[in-house]
Amino acid sequence: MRVEIWSDIACPWCYVGKARFDKALAAFPHRDRVEVVHRSFELDPDRPKGEVEPVLTMLTRKYGMSEEQARAGEDGLGAQAAAEGLAYRTRGRDHGNTFDLHRLLHLAKEHGRQDELLALLYRANFAEERSLFTGGDERLVALAVEAGLDAGAARAVLADPDAYADAVRADEREAARLGANGVPFFVLDRTYGVSGTQPVGVFAQALARAWEERPSPEPVGRAGAEACGPDGCAVPRH
Amino acid sequence: MRVEIWSDIACPWCYVGKARFDKALAAFPHRDRVEVVHRSFELDPDRPKGEVEPVLTMLTRKYGMSEEQARAGEDGLGAQAAAEGLAYRTRGRDHGNTFDLHRLLHLAKEHGRQDELLALLYRANFAEERSLFTGGDERLVALAVEAGLDAGAARAVLADPDAYADAVRADEREAARLGANGVPFFVLDRTYGVSGTQPVGVFAQALARAWEERPSPEPVGRAGAEACGPDGCAVPRH
Repeated sequence: MRVEIWSDIACPWCYVGKARFDKALAAFPHRDRVEVVHRSFELDPDRPKGEVEPVLTMLTRKYGMSEEQARAGEDGLGAQAAAEGLAYRTRGRDHGNTFDLHRLLHLAKEHGRQDELLALLYRANFAEERSLFTGGDERLVALAVEAGLDAGAARAVLADPDAYADAVRADEREAARLGANGVPFFVLDRTYGVSGTQPVGVFAQALARAWEERPSPEPVGRAGAEACGPDGCAVPRH
Repeated sequence: MRVEIWSDIACPWCYVGKARFDKALAAFPHRDRVEVVHRSFELDPDRPKGEVEPVLTMLTRKYGMSEEQARAGEDGLGAQAAAEGLAYRTRGRDHGNTFDLHRLLHLAKEHGRQDELLALLYRANFAEERSLFTGGDERLVALAVEAGLDAGAARAVLADPDAYADAVRADEREAARLGANGVPFFVLDRTYGVSGTQPVGVFAQALARAWEERPSPEPVGRAGAEACGPDGCAVPRH
């Protein structure tokens, strides 16, 4: 079974939702047969790469919150994160463009290190004092290396804005096609969709249901085409 | 869209079928959004690892063919392969256990090199004079390196019979669940199944149909759960 999770690194609910999903997955009896794929979704794709802003400033400027509302929102998110055992800095975090982070996550996917890198990017963005957005490429390279990637490969991706750009865009088009206008968005075997940060029990139920109802593909093409099986390979007439 | 292809390296129809599928995929307008995954299927799982036998001998001994029938079968397969532009040695090939090859293909998957390694294993088994089954681990390590894998990682997998063994078994259980008793077996987005080596046109049609009818996941869980979208992140009440 495959679970695709659309998220953005700058999305606090994705950080919390991933932790809840991971708890449900850890308790799922068939967890060894579940493949988890990160899919890209940018909440703020039009923000220029170098434009970094404190989260609280962004919340008041962009969404018209009062400073008090913005702080209360961050406090609430911090409490939700803490309930899942996650560190969350409710003050002093930065907001920035996440396109490069998604491109790196696609590199990590090709090397089987996507989950590791995603966890490190979340931790860096939500829990560490040092901003994820002002450390330049070398900060990201260090995280990529910590996730098990090659420094040279990560540097090459960051230096070439086209690297994995299509993969990020394809994920985003697919989210739009599936009707997702927010994240996190979880899709199980393309059969069930879970929108938003639901309770652990909802993820557990969705896993169980998708597992039980794994689809049976409809046959296409003629029956009895040449194949090899336990009784040997069909010999073509000629 | 994702296409899973169950095959065995020792399966001539898989070799031919993969080439036909690849032709259909190369002409498919959305090919950049198609992910192809190799799935393991062993035709002869009970054969001990070291037990290598000429293909023609295996055909007469195991399937009760006359020598003439066995040779005619290989000639026919050679003609089908040639029609797809594939080299195929109709005489002198060996048959052996393919478990280690599948384990290596799972290593390759984790490094994004599965398609490369599969092509090299097919070529080595069907087109090269040197047997794929009598060169020991170093022969396989050389192919893994040619596919872009690390020699040490390939050696470590071959030295540990448990490495990726569960992944191979899981693929095989999944094939059984989906009703496949022979290979190649192609599954498109878990929606359509193509059994056997069908004509290129059938693969083209299956790709077009699966693309057109990509499934929409059914929502699970409560609506309006906390999420981040273009209008910001929902603020939890507390």
